[in-house]
Amino acid sequence: METGPAHADADVRSYIDAHKGDFFAALKQWLAIPSISADPGRAGDVRRAAPWLADCLRQAGFPAAELWETGMADQPGLPAVFAHWPAADPAAPTVLVYGHHDVQPVEPLGEWNSPPFDPVERDGLLLARGASDDKGQVLFHVLGTSAWLAAHGASAPPVTLKLLIEGEEESGSTHFADLLRRERDRLACDVIVISDTTMWAADVPSMCIGMRGVIDAEIDVYGPERDLHSGSFGGAVPNPLHALAELLAGLHDRDGRVMLPGFYDKVVQLTPAERELLARLPFDEKAWLATAGNSGAASGEAGFSTIERVWARPTAEINGMWGGHTGPGGKTIVPREAHAKLSFRLVAHQEPTEIAGLPREFVAQRKPPGVNAVVTADGPGVRPSFSPVDSPAVAAGRRAMERAFGTEILFTREGGSGPEADLADVLDAPLVFVAVGLDDDRIHAPNERVDMGLLLKGAQTSAYLWDELAAVPGSTA
Amino acid sequence: METGPAHADADVRSYIDAHKGDFFAALKQWLAIPSISADPGRAGDVRRAAPWLADCLRQAGFPAAELWETGMADQPGLPAVFAHWPAADPAAPTVLVYGHHDVQPVEPLGEWNSPPFDPVERDGLLLARGASDDKGQVLFHVLGTSAWLAAHGASAPPVTLKLLIEGEEESGSTHFADLLRRERDRLACDVIVISDTTMWAADVPSMCIGMRGVIDAEIDVYGPERDLHSGSFGGAVPNPLHALAELLAGLHDRDGRVMLPGFYDKVVQLTPAERELLARLPFDEKAWLATAGNSGAASGEAGFSTIERVWARPTAEINGMWGGHTGPGGKTIVPREAHAKLSFRLVAHQEPTEIAGLPREFVAQRKPPGVNAVVTADGPGVRPSFSPVDSPAVAAGRRAMERAFGTEILFTREGGSGPEADLADVLDAPLVFVAVGLDDDRIHAPNERVDMGLLLKGAQTSAYLWDELAAVPGSTA
Repeated sequence: METGPAHADADVRSYIDAHKGDFFAALKQWLAIPSISADPGRAGDVRRAAPWLADCLRQAGFPAAELWETGMADQPGLPAVFAHWPAADPAAPTVLVYGHHDVQPVEPLGEWNSPPFDPVERDGLLLARGASDDKGQVLFHVLGTSAWLAAHGASAPPVTLKLLIEGEEESGSTHFADLLRRERDRLACDVIVISDTTMWAADVPSMCIGMRGVIDAEIDVYGPERDLHSGSFGGAVPNPLHALAELLAGLHDRDGRVMLPGFYDKVVQLTPAERELLARLPFDEKAWLATAGNSGAASGEAGFSTIERVWARPTAEINGMWGGHTGPGGKTIVPREAHAKLSFRLVAHQEPTEIAGLPREFVAQRKPPGVNAVVTADGPGVRPSFSPVDSPAVAAGRRAMERAFGTEILFTREGGSGPEADLADVLDAPLVFVAVGLDDDRIHAPNERVDMGLLLKGAQTSAYLWDELAAVPGSTA
Repeated sequence: METGPAHADADVRSYIDAHKGDFFAALKQWLAIPSISADPGRAGDVRRAAPWLADCLRQAGFPAAELWETGMADQPGLPAVFAHWPAADPAAPTVLVYGHHDVQPVEPLGEWNSPPFDPVERDGLLLARGASDDKGQVLFHVLGTSAWLAAHGASAPPVTLKLLIEGEEESGSTHFADLLRRERDRLACDVIVISDTTMWAADVPSMCIGMRGVIDAEIDVYGPERDLHSGSFGGAVPNPLHALAELLAGLHDRDGRVMLPGFYDKVVQLTPAERELLARLPFDEKAWLATAGNSGAASGEAGFSTIERVWARPTAEINGMWGGHTGPGGKTIVPREAHAKLSFRLVAHQEPTEIAGLPREFVAQRKPPGVNAVVTADGPGVRPSFSPVDSPAVAAGRRAMERAFGTEILFTREGGSGPEADLADVLDAPLVFVAVGLDDDRIHAPNERVDMGLLLKGAQTSAYLWDELAAVPGSTA
């Protein structure tokens, strides 16, 4: 490590240490605003949380911080905050930070040890709804940016900074994709920084580098025009439920591989290097199975670990199935129809629109004679995202975290996707997940909390990240 | 054919011809009583139809004809009619005739061309609710018995005759099995004659010689304690719907054979003789598929014809299936549970109580790890019944019909069972189906009708049947 950065790092740390009181005081102000987007009665509070942040960003030096309304005139959504701070060097890359200023509902209120919107500190933790998800993790970027400016005696960040802080994330990001498409030009960037997730553990800092996509489908099997008496017809006409069971059983081979022809064609295989890194995560399968509703045993595609199956391998999952008599007692029929809802989790570079066509071909090839089958792909789906460990943006994020945490950074993925997938898709830029939340922050639950020391590590990471990304050419980020 | 019987046959025919006017007049009286057992408002009419028949039987010479009440004192059922006429020879076999005096509802009333309880004749057909199912087919035995007595100048039939004419057949025979068990001793018999079914066609007279039994089961598969997010867990924990689909798909092999170990162990195989007889039925598979709700193609166990599959082969049928998300839209879950209702159609000599245990063993052997499965067999089930073509009772019935119709009699079976199965089971006697209904009699539908000429053939058959059965030793019937 060179003297220059080491010196600047020390300055960043001391700035953050000197200003942490102001930082937490400001965060508590923001946390006191009950910006529950899912509760229409709290829309006014969400509308207060947005300008609070915009003011805060302007005070920190952002030349522009504005509210972006969402939805239609007759059906307004909740506002996002957009801020923009150009780098001094017009050739510097542009970084967009995504987060959200709305929070989850707080029911059951009786289970909170202190009021959810009256933040309190206890044993190095800050307790309040939104402390981890996501106000704390948005605000550390403001402290980190100020620290970088102070440490470098600069009046503008080394990258062009854009912030997009949504107000509807906890209520389904209803208008988010539309907003992105509408503002695509002003949001143009080279890297997207997501600060709305977690690390593996406080002592195992990590970065997420991929998210599975998804596409839904439904299979409808039709037999006779009406339910038939199984005494009169059973055994001599096709039964749609049998046909459906066979189709669904045929979705996987004995090794748990998905049997849709072409399903794996574009899958980016795990590299030995990533598998080695994943294997170093201290994964407790027994504890994980307990979080999986006490599923009895891990199972899935042969040749892959549980973590690899959930994060890095595509799936075919039956989400629902129905047909025939489902009420009490027996009814001896050959039912007229049978249905199943499926979803396919996808990994890079599977395209939802291409995968959507595969179940139809599969069913057309395998459908037994005498029944009709209709396959509907419920599109457009969500594209998977993935940034290789050695991609420039991920490497920059890893170095920034290593500088902040002073230890090796491991890598994770996510099994599903949030609105981040829309960001990568619409803005066509790689995602870098820089977050310091923990799985036991109790987000979405009573007594949400955040580790205050980790938030300060987040601020450091933010400051170093602008350094590291400044060195990444925009065109190759 | 000897001179004696031929002479008697001619006398039977002339008696029936001479008395057919009285016969149809009486039948019309009975048909005018709207004895709809499923309609509580018509209970009084069912209670009128029973004594009408008892009177008619006494007038025909039955020494005893009484009403048997059913149900409990606080929840009375509808009465059956029991009549008894001992043969002169105490060593003669005892024959029990089963039928019913209640009828189906008549809705939709607007589709009847004439009022359902105002019988009219048209082109050799008698139109009324119950004309074929089952009043016409009960009453022909009275005319036949009178004809036999007249032709032979006898004052008692050549077999001991018992009639049991139920009043709840069209509403589920709710109290029938109880009645049989209660009156088992008085109902004791060597042969049971069922006159509540159909022949193959007016020009293809036939006898039913077997009915499939049935046993129900349910499979419940349980996975995680709650529905799981398929992004977080999909691909690495067992999915109960997958497990169920595999179990159900495994119920049959590629040849359509049921894969429950031991399922076929006790099955009485079709003989070449019976297969040859079945093949002679003028079966129009395309027309049959149209009656099967336009099922697209016949399919089932390899090596058997459609008729053999429906009548003489056991089945495993999925009647219903459900689990996970079944509402509108998608829900990307690994569901916590999955369920299926099954029924197994059985043939002689499969025992429902034995077959009931097989799905449990099958599921225990095949269940994938990580899920639990509970298999519940529902009920005592219904035992299959079957009388071989060359059994004494069937041979007697066949000869009686041949004498009436003057042509070869073919054989059919039934794919399901009615209350007749209880009769064979409780009374432990072979069933002989002597019926002259047709598939296009529109039973259970508007404009029910019966071919009047066939009813008179039924009366002849009845007279000859007493002859033929008198020659069958009771102990080997």
